[in-house]
Amino acid sequence: MERSGGQAGATERIDNYPGFPEGIGGADLAGRFVQQARRYGVEMVSGVAIAGVQRDGETVSITTTTGEEYCGHAAIIATGTSYRRLGVPGEERWTGAGIHYCATCDGPFYKGADELIVIGGGNSGLEEGLFLAQFARRIRVLEYQPKLSASRLLQEKVLNHPRFEVHTNVEVTGLEGSGRLSAVHTRDRSTGKVQAIRADAAFVFIGLDPNTSFLKTTIALDRWGFVETEANFQTSLPGVFAAGDVRAGATKQLGSAVGEGITALLMVRRYLEQRAHLAPRVVND
Amino acid sequence: MERSGGQAGATERIDNYPGFPEGIGGADLAGRFVQQARRYGVEMVSGVAIAGVQRDGETVSITTTTGEEYCGHAAIIATGTSYRRLGVPGEERWTGAGIHYCATCDGPFYKGADELIVIGGGNSGLEEGLFLAQFARRIRVLEYQPKLSASRLLQEKVLNHPRFEVHTNVEVTGLEGSGRLSAVHTRDRSTGKVQAIRADAAFVFIGLDPNTSFLKTTIALDRWGFVETEANFQTSLPGVFAAGDVRAGATKQLGSAVGEGITALLMVRRYLEQRAHLAPRVVND
Repeated sequence: MERSGGQAGATERIDNYPGFPEGIGGADLAGRFVQQARRYGVEMVSGVAIAGVQRDGETVSITTTTGEEYCGHAAIIATGTSYRRLGVPGEERWTGAGIHYCATCDGPFYKGADELIVIGGGNSGLEEGLFLAQFARRIRVLEYQPKLSASRLLQEKVLNHPRFEVHTNVEVTGLEGSGRLSAVHTRDRSTGKVQAIRADAAFVFIGLDPNTSFLKTTIALDRWGFVETEANFQTSLPGVFAAGDVRAGATKQLGSAVGEGITALLMVRRYLEQRAHLAPRVVND
Repeated sequence: MERSGGQAGATERIDNYPGFPEGIGGADLAGRFVQQARRYGVEMVSGVAIAGVQRDGETVSITTTTGEEYCGHAAIIATGTSYRRLGVPGEERWTGAGIHYCATCDGPFYKGADELIVIGGGNSGLEEGLFLAQFARRIRVLEYQPKLSASRLLQEKVLNHPRFEVHTNVEVTGLEGSGRLSAVHTRDRSTGKVQAIRADAAFVFIGLDPNTSFLKTTIALDRWGFVETEANFQTSLPGVFAAGDVRAGATKQLGSAVGEGITALLMVRRYLEQRAHLAPRVVND
């Protein structure tokens, strides 16, 4: 079976989901969600890649890349987001071997490290960088833009932190290694100077891309590819709703995403009730 | 200390809050929320009745009925709702002694009862009535309007259920008892016929009133008294946000309300960040 729970399921420890005062492992929480859904008879289909979502009359159909078709009267898109990749040579090769996208997941492997690089100077980059500072002697932050974009508070914390060194206006051009990552190649965007910065690992936080490529032709997305919804979480395709991180305007917080999922489900119920002929029949009760 | 958790905290068993596949007691879950909030240094002030919310310059101030004042740069209103009362003679006297507002809380006390009355023919009335049907020989539903307003599905279930008797267009005029409730007085709104229906208990489900009387003069409410908010959960008073059941458009589901609370908090953070001089300072870090 595929791993459940998306990004939350891959998070080592979740401290901010209400109900678990001591925190809970991401995989454990995801497992509890699955168990609870099963209790209500929800059928899980895993290992399926979606190719498209269409509507024909009152039927919404989901087609997979292997040609299967799932039909219903309504659907909720909750495909979340993926960490944006650098798109430079070596990235795929060193992913998991020096290139990482989650400090809480992989940071602890670098306890006692000499040098870690954080690529991206937004909120995520600085937050995760501050987390990494407990493990390594020095954290170097590389930001493509001339200025950091993180909140003032995070910037203050990082700029006043003895272990941090911040480089702005710097482009990452490549990754070097042998067996595992050994250096990050950069180019100063103002002076043109190129450099190979030696590092034990580089953590990449340059944004999140919504998992919506399969929706492009049928559902309205915003300029970044997030699904646009009305106040009731319905997308531009009637009967198709969206919830969680994939939705434009979502907060990218687990508890908010769970709440949106519940709200969207109630909106689906209302949608079906307004179309009495489509309302689900209770078979066993 | 006051009981925490509002209506959820008073619910015997909660099965639909994600993360607890076996269900969890409402008081237990509320206790976990409190414990988790304390871990992050949240200060709880209980036993306080709010008299009003005002804004003066960049300061939001909350005044209590005993004259205290709490000041800050932003506030979230999450006061929830209360069960609507019948407003008939005897109601206060028999509350808890034959008059109830929560079937899952108090229904089990009537195991083996002869006759239970459900007042209110909306979704809540019929849902809770169906729950009560496991305990009593007969469930009589009294609805003020000429028709039930519950969903078609719930109506079908109740109308096909051998233990149910439904009376529409009926006004409850009073409650009779001695030591505890013994009968409900009604008047048929079309014929004018009055009746005293003997019952072991009556469960009242005639709606929820938002707990917003203290906001009336300062914050825009909808015609039912729920707090109106923008997409970012801000109310008509800048710096004051609202989340959960008290908010117009909320779903009245625990998981949704929790999600809205988290989203509102992030919106407060954004609000404060946009006013850099107000942003919270991290004292110990």
